Amino acid sequence: MAAWVVIMAGGGGTRLWPLSRRAHPKQFLPLLAGGETLLAATARRSSGLAPIERTLVVTAASQVQQVLAALPQLPPANVVAEPEARNTAPCIGLAALHIRARDADGAMAVLPSDQFIADEEAFRAAARRALDVAEAGEVVTIGLHPRHPETGFGYIQCGDQMGDGVRRVVRFVEKPDRATAERYLASGDYLWNAGMFFFPAHRILVEISRSMPDLGRILDGIAADPSRAGELYPRAPKLSIDYGVMEKLGGAMAVVPADLGWSDVGSFAALPEVLGKDGDGNTTLGETMAIDARGNVLVGEGVLVAAVGVSDLVVVATRDAVVVLPRERAQDVKRVVEQLEAKRREPYL
Amino acid sequence: MAAWVVIMAGGGGTRLWPLSRRAHPKQFLPLLAGGETLLAATARRSSGLAPIERTLVVTAASQVQQVLAALPQLPPANVVAEPEARNTAPCIGLAALHIRARDADGAMAVLPSDQFIADEEAFRAAARRALDVAEAGEVVTIGLHPRHPETGFGYIQCGDQMGDGVRRVVRFVEKPDRATAERYLASGDYLWNAGMFFFPAHRILVEISRSMPDLGRILDGIAADPSRAGELYPRAPKLSIDYGVMEKLGGAMAVVPADLGWSDVGSFAALPEVLGKDGDGNTTLGETMAIDARGNVLVGEGVLVAAVGVSDLVVVATRDAVVVLPRERAQDVKRVVEQLEAKRREPYL
Repeated sequence: MAAWVVIMAGGGGTRLWPLSRRAHPKQFLPLLAGGETLLAATARRSSGLAPIERTLVVTAASQVQQVLAALPQLPPANVVAEPEARNTAPCIGLAALHIRARDADGAMAVLPSDQFIADEEAFRAAARRALDVAEAGEVVTIGLHPRHPETGFGYIQCGDQMGDGVRRVVRFVEKPDRATAERYLASGDYLWNAGMFFFPAHRILVEISRSMPDLGRILDGIAADPSRAGELYPRAPKLSIDYGVMEKLGGAMAVVPADLGWSDVGSFAALPEVLGKDGDGNTTLGETMAIDARGNVLVGEGVLVAAVGVSDLVVVATRDAVVVLPRERAQDVKRVVEQLEAKRREPYL
Repeated sequence: MAAWVVIMAGGGGTRLWPLSRRAHPKQFLPLLAGGETLLAATARRSSGLAPIERTLVVTAASQVQQVLAALPQLPPANVVAEPEARNTAPCIGLAALHIRARDADGAMAVLPSDQFIADEEAFRAAARRALDVAEAGEVVTIGLHPRHPETGFGYIQCGDQMGDGVRRVVRFVEKPDRATAERYLASGDYLWNAGMFFFPAHRILVEISRSMPDLGRILDGIAADPSRAGELYPRAPKLSIDYGVMEKLGGAMAVVPADLGWSDVGSFAALPEVLGKDGDGNTTLGETMAIDARGNVLVGEGVLVAAVGVSDLVVVATRDAVVVLPRERAQDVKRVVEQLEAKRREPYL
């Protein structure tokens, strides 16, 4: 049984606007040290799990060229183009069809392309362990020890030890309220769900058919006649693998708990974790100048960003748009995007 | 004796950076309602004082085309190009030579091109009155009733009534400290010096020769052989007419006190006076979006500026640079410019 890496690079997302746009989402942004993209970092990190010939990238048809530009080593045949974005359950099903067709016993490591992981050694060890268990037929995830009572993530309650570094999943739980999140943090038995999954390709197709029979039939139709993908795939239910399959599997899954220095880079407020801070507590990307300014996140994409006498702000500028907001409201760039959508200001979207 | 208008449009200035640049200073920016420039507004305001044929604009040689673009009615021969910027005393001397050569008895209204005046009727009345007195041979200025204890301007102490709406100047005083400015404001006898002057051309040339003999000799040389201007003018002392001549004239001058709704647009903090405020107290220019944001000055030149949840900030963006700072520190854009100069970042200057 060979291991395959599947990188999901089809995401859109507006939380890093104006850097991220519909046509240029987060995974393609040169956010990391040295200008590396999150997608390229994901591929580099996972290169020890499977060779590039057994790495697939699933993305929107319109973003195939961006994927190949970010990953020049990737064989073009390994880019799987989704006819339409339908969330992760159809995306993973499509990737599983590709793998099953080329390697009936293949096991898959499914990885989001838009996350940051500081401790790459710890990632490789946890993923290697998860793949081992998956190669024995299990559905496995990596769960992250929570670092604060986050209300924006789903959690995984874990139970008995299944083996060295692996525990049985008790259940997946949705985003909790603050009090519940604090209880989870205190208990030590709850982990963050980071959306990384490991399983044999044939097994996930069986689980999809069981939990999402509509999607199962669509995937069967595509397997029987791949030329019908463009017609069938857009009819797939728009559902995440978490809601569609994992929550139902629950206790039948395994989890590898880990500390990875992980961030979903869910807003500009996460950039200090990714890029660090200078002596004044500012995090900068691009050409910036900070004078009497502390604790800011300053990003200029082809634009000089100068901040004087301000604290704890996010300032992000591109050649056509600028957003300024307090760090603790960094999520609110989505309100700007919503207004631009309402006004149909397409050039900015 | 005919009246001439001389508009001084040679200024540089960095206080509105990044909108204003060395090659594109404040007077050429479309800061006013309807996209009018301060220069065009100055010419429009003064059009009742003298016809366009008797309006001169003195500017840097490199900015002649920008002047003609801003003032399409102006005869090109009425643009006086300074071989080099040498402050206002040489500039006014050069303009006086031009006028004296064309109209030996001409009187001049000398007006800065980069000021905002809300009450144009009041301006015309005050300037008309000042020109009347100048046409009788006097050196006259318009003094503005102070609206707050400003420490950034020079003041004019005024004395006896000379005639209807005209008072004798007691003395020019330099920028005061705060306590002195408060005393000036309370006394009622001190006016802001706005740098608008009125006099016969031949008279100011006499006064320059008396107070600034070096400049007088240079001007005499240029008058004798205008082709030597490029050689002689750059040797002129770099001095303002205020310091070089007016402070010495002092009590020999007249002043017309006025309320003009005047602003020197000395920083972005002045834009609310020029452009007004919306219901949230924001002042905006260009395409902007304010969400839960109050009391800000938001300027986008070809760039969308979005502010969320911030108050009393200045955010100014162009296609290559952005500055963010508190409104009460709006003057500190000069610190950004100083650092750019020190780093020789020419494209931004």
